[in-house]
Amino acid sequence: MRNNKALLIAATGEDPEPYRAIFRERMPELVVHTDGEDYDPASVAYALCWKPRAGLLATLPNLDVIFSMGAGIDHIIADPQLPSRQPIVRLMHDKTREQMRDYVLHVVLHYYRQMDVAAAQQAKKQWEFLQIRDKSRLKVGLLGLGEMGSTAGKTLAALGFSVMGWSRSPKDIPGITSFSGADGLKAMAAEAHFLISILPATDDTIGILNRSLFETLPKGAIVVNLGRGNHLVTEDLLAALDSGHLGGATLDVFAPEPMPQDSPFWEHPLVRVTPHVGSDGNSDIVADAVIDNIRRVESGLPPSPVGDRARGY
Amino acid sequence: MRNNKALLIAATGEDPEPYRAIFRERMPELVVHTDGEDYDPASVAYALCWKPRAGLLATLPNLDVIFSMGAGIDHIIADPQLPSRQPIVRLMHDKTREQMRDYVLHVVLHYYRQMDVAAAQQAKKQWEFLQIRDKSRLKVGLLGLGEMGSTAGKTLAALGFSVMGWSRSPKDIPGITSFSGADGLKAMAAEAHFLISILPATDDTIGILNRSLFETLPKGAIVVNLGRGNHLVTEDLLAALDSGHLGGATLDVFAPEPMPQDSPFWEHPLVRVTPHVGSDGNSDIVADAVIDNIRRVESGLPPSPVGDRARGY
Repeated sequence: MRNNKALLIAATGEDPEPYRAIFRERMPELVVHTDGEDYDPASVAYALCWKPRAGLLATLPNLDVIFSMGAGIDHIIADPQLPSRQPIVRLMHDKTREQMRDYVLHVVLHYYRQMDVAAAQQAKKQWEFLQIRDKSRLKVGLLGLGEMGSTAGKTLAALGFSVMGWSRSPKDIPGITSFSGADGLKAMAAEAHFLISILPATDDTIGILNRSLFETLPKGAIVVNLGRGNHLVTEDLLAALDSGHLGGATLDVFAPEPMPQDSPFWEHPLVRVTPHVGSDGNSDIVADAVIDNIRRVESGLPPSPVGDRARGY
Repeated sequence: MRNNKALLIAATGEDPEPYRAIFRERMPELVVHTDGEDYDPASVAYALCWKPRAGLLATLPNLDVIFSMGAGIDHIIADPQLPSRQPIVRLMHDKTREQMRDYVLHVVLHYYRQMDVAAAQQAKKQWEFLQIRDKSRLKVGLLGLGEMGSTAGKTLAALGFSVMGWSRSPKDIPGITSFSGADGLKAMAAEAHFLISILPATDDTIGILNRSLFETLPKGAIVVNLGRGNHLVTEDLLAALDSGHLGGATLDVFAPEPMPQDSPFWEHPLVRVTPHVGSDGNSDIVADAVIDNIRRVESGLPPSPVGDRARGY
């Protein structure tokens, strides 16, 4: 590594210290700066970003690679002054894929085994047997069949669920029935007892979880949002729950986050709220992926995986 | 099938009608009686039992096979007048194994992903990120490595958990570290962040989930009882939870069942109660397994799997 190459941590609301400590230990030759401290902008070759301050990346004349602290790149391309020539590397790590898969497994098993009903019975000191439904007749519809969606889908299929998946273009994944396009979305929703979104945040998918989609779902269906908060139309979900059409919802992402105190989701009896914990690109995992990519770049290989700015993920 | 062979449903607290309907459909030649109605005891070759009335089976001179409606045979061998020559067939079906595995997966994922904490936060409208722990460092200790325990253990291992199992005799199951004997139990417990009992009900295992075992577990461990209610010493569990040593418990089986209204478990903040739903040998599954075994017996094969009266399961 050339000694003059530095990494800038440009992360809003994230403590840079754990990252610094890990880089110091695992790649001691890397010079690490944080936004706000004194450094030479020309020395910065790498930027590690979470919602970077608008305009900051444009001040770095020798920036080679932009790293996202998450799977999404939406929080980076939101910067109107973002320089255009650098690859933006998404966080994709075996661990984050596995974490998302585990969340999906948990939520499907939770409703399949009526753990929500069991908890309500316990609160009423009520003992009533809960019959186990035939799992093969429960269809799980995944919105998004990228690395995370397909990993989750394959495991659900291996556990005996009937799995469908919707994506921009048709996919050929063993055990997952593929749907695509607007008609495909309707066709999949019409069969889905579980509709689970792991979609990336793009302009196309804002508001995709809306009234028209909810009406297409079978009665009693469960909606799960693990993508981005703005995929969901809040009023439409509340209406579909309150009318008795939907059976429940589990939400992990919100717009904005943290979810405001006056959100109706907190106290809704059919809504489970988790605080954006679907996957946890913790400092260990992030630093691991960054170090791996810096080594690739320094040895002449391209970084991976690179987000598509036009597509938005 | 000889026309004179009949099946007697001898089940306390179970509605015999769903079974009758299924036998009528799938094995119309089988004559089915229920305890209480008028029938010729000499015609009964098969008895399908759940807690059969004591002495009833001794009145059947030509009884060939006793079928249990559950995986356990304890509710049958409890009859002091039980005739000794017939095989007692346990209910073991791919579906019940899978159901138990799914319950175990759910409960492990539930605590691993701190869904209990997330629910408590939601109740307080509190948004606080929950870090995901390194799964490979979370050790799951299974008590019982029969068909159900080993199936659950293999799947947990495939999902990345570190899995240990304790059984009467050492077992060689890929991905599961085997422990046996009294010393093995202590050694496994000392490492187990989750202690999950799927043990059969035998005299040896009554009270096995007791104070001394709980003290051996690491601080914050989770105890799950899916075996039989009398495996657990209620006061010992409450003391270990209330002292802060154990992190939580999920209980699916109780002594007696239904759990009485005055049980302290209903309202304990660290106890999850489910109404004996670990696996559901519903009438479909039971009748399926019985028909399959009657066909085996009629064609000269032994029924399977046969419980060991001496061992108690």
